[in-house]
Amino acid sequence: MRTLLVIGIGAGDPRHLTLGAVDALRSADVVITLDKGEQKADLLRARHRVIDTHAPGTPVVTVSDPERDRRPSDYRAEVHRWHGERARRISAAITSATGAEGTVAFLVWGDPALYDSTLRIIDRMQEETGLECMVKVIPGITALQALTAAHTVTANRVGEPIHVTTGRLLPETSPADRRNCFVMLDGGTAWNDVAGPDTYIYWGAYLGTADQVLRAGYVENIGGEIAALKYTLRESHGWIMDTYLLRELDRE
Amino acid sequence: MRTLLVIGIGAGDPRHLTLGAVDALRSADVVITLDKGEQKADLLRARHRVIDTHAPGTPVVTVSDPERDRRPSDYRAEVHRWHGERARRISAAITSATGAEGTVAFLVWGDPALYDSTLRIIDRMQEETGLECMVKVIPGITALQALTAAHTVTANRVGEPIHVTTGRLLPETSPADRRNCFVMLDGGTAWNDVAGPDTYIYWGAYLGTADQVLRAGYVENIGGEIAALKYTLRESHGWIMDTYLLRELDRE
Repeated sequence: MRTLLVIGIGAGDPRHLTLGAVDALRSADVVITLDKGEQKADLLRARHRVIDTHAPGTPVVTVSDPERDRRPSDYRAEVHRWHGERARRISAAITSATGAEGTVAFLVWGDPALYDSTLRIIDRMQEETGLECMVKVIPGITALQALTAAHTVTANRVGEPIHVTTGRLLPETSPADRRNCFVMLDGGTAWNDVAGPDTYIYWGAYLGTADQVLRAGYVENIGGEIAALKYTLRESHGWIMDTYLLRELDRE
Repeated sequence: MRTLLVIGIGAGDPRHLTLGAVDALRSADVVITLDKGEQKADLLRARHRVIDTHAPGTPVVTVSDPERDRRPSDYRAEVHRWHGERARRISAAITSATGAEGTVAFLVWGDPALYDSTLRIIDRMQEETGLECMVKVIPGITALQALTAAHTVTANRVGEPIHVTTGRLLPETSPADRRNCFVMLDGGTAWNDVAGPDTYIYWGAYLGTADQVLRAGYVENIGGEIAALKYTLRESHGWIMDTYLLRELDRE
């Protein structure tokens, strides 16, 4: 049976790679890249650098997403067709690039378990095409961990829970859950919408890379400055990926 | 100035170590181990193996916690005295083992940001003794990531938040937060106290090690079996460390 290795390669710093990820990458016959149309040139370059460093010469096959009708008359039917077509493309890439006992690597930024669709897409691919594979996940350092490490802070305070959510859901997150709250995938500046006088933010963009930018302070003091900074950085880089931890501090 | 490296070494599997952790460990003049009295012989051996593999010959200094009066007449004063004494011991270990420009490594299971006290203890040490050091954190793979990888599941479902809590707090966690809820530090079997008919559990013990045990299923079917298994494993190993993800499944 074929082996599919879903490898977390960390949050941007090549030193985030684990020894297990290096071994897995080296064992692969081919790397398959899912081009979900959200790829940034900088990230693609960084991913190629990982392959060139640890498994030079490994062929890389890019599977691009099929065209999709964004305004179909039958939405469910169109999504079903689209998922099916994508599944067949991935399955075809796997079978044409590897023999029956071959090993395929999928490289995932961060950790394959955290806000990433690769495992879900592979599941669908197996369901839709019947291609039998053994799936193995190699965990990787997430942006959340790169963030706390860069700020030398802990995710939780003694005995307290931690919440992880998205920019979209942050406004409807309860005050209790916002005591130690990581926010990912915030296309805007949701921190400014929820902050009270005691809300502290640990913010980071391009975490783990040479372009890493960090800010920390009370949102009421620096929330606006970070919003402006995010705008400027996005303009100059052409894209931005940022993550933050909100913490309610109990001021004395 | 001295450098303190707080290095996450992963959840038990030596292949969890990142390339950055290996480099950090190699750069250290000494490894300081905080013996918080909860050390398991297996874990101590595994940690020594990490040092022997990647930085053989690096001296290891163990700082044991001072004696503590568990039934003091003045609780706050006793805790203060105890923290101060511990701070002085760590500070003394650092200054006697390294020169003014030396590098000290603290090895932490999992990630130093997640339910670990090392960063907090170092903060206190700096406050109490005035010893100036530059602290650098190297993130590591957590038990949560070892758990999801071993089960090949994602932490979140599309767009949903994730909650991380302790066994003690689980009973007071809201149903919304229990939809995708990681539980750590559960000395008992809290999963059985909160589960409804649609609660699914992904459970793992001794994650990342050769002794790893996994179970997954509806709590109503396997919750009791896992409780019995946990009891048996604790008896036979002398200790247990387990982690789990509870997920409310929307059955059709």
